[in-house]
Amino acid sequence: MRPLVLARFTMLSPFTHAQDVLTVASPGGTLRLTFTLDTDGVPTYRVDRLGRPIVLPSRMGVALREGPSFTEGLSCVGSEQRTTDETWETVWGETRRIRNHYRELTVRLATPGNPAREMGIVFRVYDGGLGFRYEWPAQPALGAFAIVDEQTEFRFTGDHTAWWIPAYRDHRYEYLYQETPLATLDTVHTPLTMRSAEGLYLSLHEAALWDYASMALAHTAENTLRADLVPWADGVKVYGQTPFASPWRTLQVSDTPGGLVTDYLLLNLNEPNKLEDVSWIEPGKYAGIWWGMHVGTMTWHSGPRHGATTENTRRYIDFAARHGFKGVLAEGWNVGWDQQWWNGEGDRFRFSEPMPDFDIEVLAQYARAKGVRLVGHHETGAAIDNYEAQMDSAFAYAAAHGMNTVKTGYVGSRLTGGGARQWHHGQYGVRHYNKCVLAAARHQIMLDIHEPIKDTGLRRTYPNLMTREGARGMEYDAWSNDGGNPPSHHALLPFTRSLAGPFDYTPGVLAFFYPEKPGNRVNMTTAKALALYVTIYSPLHMVAGLPEDLEKHPALRFIEEVPTDWDTTLVPHGEVGRYATFARKDRRSDDWYVGSVTDDTGRVLSLPLYFLDPARAYVAEIWADAPETDWKTNPEPFVYREEAVTAQTVLELRLAPGGGCALRIRP
Amino acid sequence: MRPLVLARFTMLSPFTHAQDVLTVASPGGTLRLTFTLDTDGVPTYRVDRLGRPIVLPSRMGVALREGPSFTEGLSCVGSEQRTTDETWETVWGETRRIRNHYRELTVRLATPGNPAREMGIVFRVYDGGLGFRYEWPAQPALGAFAIVDEQTEFRFTGDHTAWWIPAYRDHRYEYLYQETPLATLDTVHTPLTMRSAEGLYLSLHEAALWDYASMALAHTAENTLRADLVPWADGVKVYGQTPFASPWRTLQVSDTPGGLVTDYLLLNLNEPNKLEDVSWIEPGKYAGIWWGMHVGTMTWHSGPRHGATTENTRRYIDFAARHGFKGVLAEGWNVGWDQQWWNGEGDRFRFSEPMPDFDIEVLAQYARAKGVRLVGHHETGAAIDNYEAQMDSAFAYAAAHGMNTVKTGYVGSRLTGGGARQWHHGQYGVRHYNKCVLAAARHQIMLDIHEPIKDTGLRRTYPNLMTREGARGMEYDAWSNDGGNPPSHHALLPFTRSLAGPFDYTPGVLAFFYPEKPGNRVNMTTAKALALYVTIYSPLHMVAGLPEDLEKHPALRFIEEVPTDWDTTLVPHGEVGRYATFARKDRRSDDWYVGSVTDDTGRVLSLPLYFLDPARAYVAEIWADAPETDWKTNPEPFVYREEAVTAQTVLELRLAPGGGCALRIRP
Repeated sequence: MRPLVLARFTMLSPFTHAQDVLTVASPGGTLRLTFTLDTDGVPTYRVDRLGRPIVLPSRMGVALREGPSFTEGLSCVGSEQRTTDETWETVWGETRRIRNHYRELTVRLATPGNPAREMGIVFRVYDGGLGFRYEWPAQPALGAFAIVDEQTEFRFTGDHTAWWIPAYRDHRYEYLYQETPLATLDTVHTPLTMRSAEGLYLSLHEAALWDYASMALAHTAENTLRADLVPWADGVKVYGQTPFASPWRTLQVSDTPGGLVTDYLLLNLNEPNKLEDVSWIEPGKYAGIWWGMHVGTMTWHSGPRHGATTENTRRYIDFAARHGFKGVLAEGWNVGWDQQWWNGEGDRFRFSEPMPDFDIEVLAQYARAKGVRLVGHHETGAAIDNYEAQMDSAFAYAAAHGMNTVKTGYVGSRLTGGGARQWHHGQYGVRHYNKCVLAAARHQIMLDIHEPIKDTGLRRTYPNLMTREGARGMEYDAWSNDGGNPPSHHALLPFTRSLAGPFDYTPGVLAFFYPEKPGNRVNMTTAKALALYVTIYSPLHMVAGLPEDLEKHPALRFIEEVPTDWDTTLVPHGEVGRYATFARKDRRSDDWYVGSVTDDTGRVLSLPLYFLDPARAYVAEIWADAPETDWKTNPEPFVYREEAVTAQTVLELRLAPGGGCALRIRP
Repeated sequence: MRPLVLARFTMLSPFTHAQDVLTVASPGGTLRLTFTLDTDGVPTYRVDRLGRPIVLPSRMGVALREGPSFTEGLSCVGSEQRTTDETWETVWGETRRIRNHYRELTVRLATPGNPAREMGIVFRVYDGGLGFRYEWPAQPALGAFAIVDEQTEFRFTGDHTAWWIPAYRDHRYEYLYQETPLATLDTVHTPLTMRSAEGLYLSLHEAALWDYASMALAHTAENTLRADLVPWADGVKVYGQTPFASPWRTLQVSDTPGGLVTDYLLLNLNEPNKLEDVSWIEPGKYAGIWWGMHVGTMTWHSGPRHGATTENTRRYIDFAARHGFKGVLAEGWNVGWDQQWWNGEGDRFRFSEPMPDFDIEVLAQYARAKGVRLVGHHETGAAIDNYEAQMDSAFAYAAAHGMNTVKTGYVGSRLTGGGARQWHHGQYGVRHYNKCVLAAARHQIMLDIHEPIKDTGLRRTYPNLMTREGARGMEYDAWSNDGGNPPSHHALLPFTRSLAGPFDYTPGVLAFFYPEKPGNRVNMTTAKALALYVTIYSPLHMVAGLPEDLEKHPALRFIEEVPTDWDTTLVPHGEVGRYATFARKDRRSDDWYVGSVTDDTGRVLSLPLYFLDPARAYVAEIWADAPETDWKTNPEPFVYREEAVTAQTVLELRLAPGGGCALRIRP
């Protein structure tokens, strides 16, 4: 680090400090961060992009329960700047290599008093966005402490269009995204996507949420949002012990929605992989005894339609083996499902005790013989004490039965644990979910978390943290009383929820109507059902449909072929909530896959295949909507065709209303 | 033509006709047109795109001054459908080859009475848009007639965002485009560009305006616009004589703004080239004694600063010859400029009489020796009788002096002629402007019309109709009291005015401040000034700057090199009024040129060069904004660099606020 000369503007009043102003520009000069400690010792920051403001001067600071706070009357006791430029390789992901190129400014602030308390603010400024966090070094004047308020503000330059879901709701992240002006927001989750009147796209989120409260965003003034830390049941926001650091508050800015997707700021702001051996981590697809419960042909609980029986699971193992799917999930396999687990009896779940009709020893052996892995399932009913008491043995039990993946679940409006009811997103929940990641890693188990906390890029540090839910998934089409997920949902997800990280949407349903659910249906076309494997990124993707439906469908071939681990990701088209096209190169072959999805409006999109190797000839296998296809009136028709293509080819993608298009392009 | 079976739904009321419903889909099935003659004999049409409505059922019809009108009580006496698929070559233009692929529906309607009057409505439905027009065949019951109202409506599906300029104003088309909801419009000019909430882009205009009134659009109800024909001074809209036809009313629909640009519906709806010999038609650039008058260093009228002197024109000829510009315009060369020509004395213009200090014989010979053409100039002061009386001799005079281009001008709030004051855009004006095209063609003269009527694609039929003004050009930066053309203007033009056809914006100014005009300045950066040659299409482009400014500027090289006639045009990026990138291939070499412009917001845009020949290596000559460039505070800095590129290269274009980027990419 090299010391930085402070620009110091002395004010005339004898009662004020000098004002400290520090600036740092991104490596390419696109973004400029200005930190100011004003004459009252209040820290603020502003962000400019290419000479125009993006964030107006906005307050920073943290209030503690006891003693001097880091909110005002602060003095600047030092600062450093440095530049980092490195490229690292992902264990798995949307892209193989990621460049981490930023300029960093650290400002060290002190409270009045003797001894003073110290806090650092670290800014990392990239061309595509920036992150900043609060750091508290070990120090005599500050050991254990309680944060009662984080004063971080985001004062935007206009009443941006925002795509959001509400925070502090019983169904956590499972809401339809709304598109409204910023000024109408109440308190919302991150990532929050916005579009300015100037046509810039912004995403506000956080990175490396490890031991802190999640940050929701409260609308506090015209165009201003403010950090709103999800509290403990006792009202405290965060309990800390120096040395300690907050997560990174992140802001991405791009001229296109797709630019937000292919910028890897969140991952760059997380620490490198801490798992020494990653050879056991395997992206892939899995089948599951799951959709049947949602459409009413099976049950989680025991009885005549119990899904997780030995026989049914064997059938799914056969299905997975026939089609090359790596895993089979059997929900409802263990003791606890016959209680009112959703209603206070979640503590009766046992994670090493199968139901009597689920012969796990036989199935583990059968799966192994078929080259398929059982996928474990730990529904906790949000009863955390019960789960944590069994966690280690539960992962050991899973591993002993050949499972290398466990799907966890936290159905419930609050987590119960430590004698209180806690928000999933408070520090209590954050600690639990992360404890679980470490425990799973010790047993070489990959995690797929449902009813999770939001993704903040920890998968870089713990690459067994594969995927999670955290949005309305496929199951809403099976039973929700609001019409299910509308077609726009699939064009919103890539630019909202998925900016956080992998999403286990559980696609793969190719039958759209179920007699047991006459009031529900699957709201997409066949071609869109395929495209979701490309537009929604997850290293573990379910093949959600019933085997009997899938095996009679020719499009199962695409689901067999599509990979879940990529060398490169591009976003040729995108309008938030309207349509999205993704092109991804397989990490293990020279194949490219393209997925395109639209809302209720049909589209004709032009796709130049410039990303192909110009020296090679390819065949495009195209799964498209038919001329008569319409998600609402006629969802099933599709057309399959093969076309010789090269890097010079410009394909025309025709998407039906609510439809899509899926391509495999092979040399 | 093959006869079509009418779908006929008989209503129960004995007092009504049967309802006639006819549909025709575009060749690829994207658009569907439905014509209905309802039970009251009122014709309506609707348009659907990919299964969703674009235009709701909208009234059609034409009211005549005398006798039965074509508005209601009509009966359908026949209909035909046919398909056309042909590809034709442009004489010059944005692209060399254009496919004309449509399905046509003709409906023949009759008034009540005996003998009935007949009118046809012809619909041509393309995948990218449609056109329809009214046709009156020669018939006993209808010879000469007067149209008093055209009832064509456009009922849109929502309150679209519209980009518009007002109609019926003294400055014709020379207004800044406004962006407002459709429902706030008064009466506006075409082409009218709109964006629906679903993200579709629409352009409403007309094609082949030959002997009819121009169509403005009046807002008549919530989301409805209605044809508003610009009247004669006597209130009649159109005088016709069978056989007669209206222009085509055109609607383009695309998923992207760029899709509106690269669809050639307007040209397809015009008749093929009628000029047998086109060898004398030469696109190119011209210098001009013009900018000096706007920035106050020269005058049109005689006196010490008279611009069009023999000596000064010789200097411009030298300048043009040194840099390969084909023409030199000298405004103020002829008799008439010393009168109050803008104030009723336009009839004193003489088009074959030079000013005493302009020795046209010497200059014609000097130009010829230097390989440069003089460009004629006919400012009419809107005095049409005076001009028409001299027109033929004026073009003969121009041709005799080696001119193959004449720029005409119609400054004035109305055209005076035939004893009345007429709108430029009424049938009187339309007839005059078109008469002028024919007269010029007879003398092998290319036309560049200022204060014109709007372009409706007649350049296909008369390819000597090269370019025109019809929007706020460069000169507004020199003297307007409203701040000149803001940076957004350049990002609006490609998606509004330029959808009609070529625009003589007169770019090429590389000096942004003039001591004679302390209150005005040129509102762009150096790189944007270059990019305009690519983003604004015109087969004749002025090099507007003063030679002394340009010759000391290294960027003059780009202006020398950039062609004005293209083999191919692509629009890699575009947001209406925000930014636009055009890539065009030279028609006479293998070079590509790229221009990108932005509004007040800086941009970082990714440009894959997939359009290059994959078998070749290229050098990109890049003229870009410098890191410190800002149109407002620091417009001049630019950086030039050369970069080896191929079809696989993805360039990053960085545009400063109000800036741009210009590229020549040569093998």
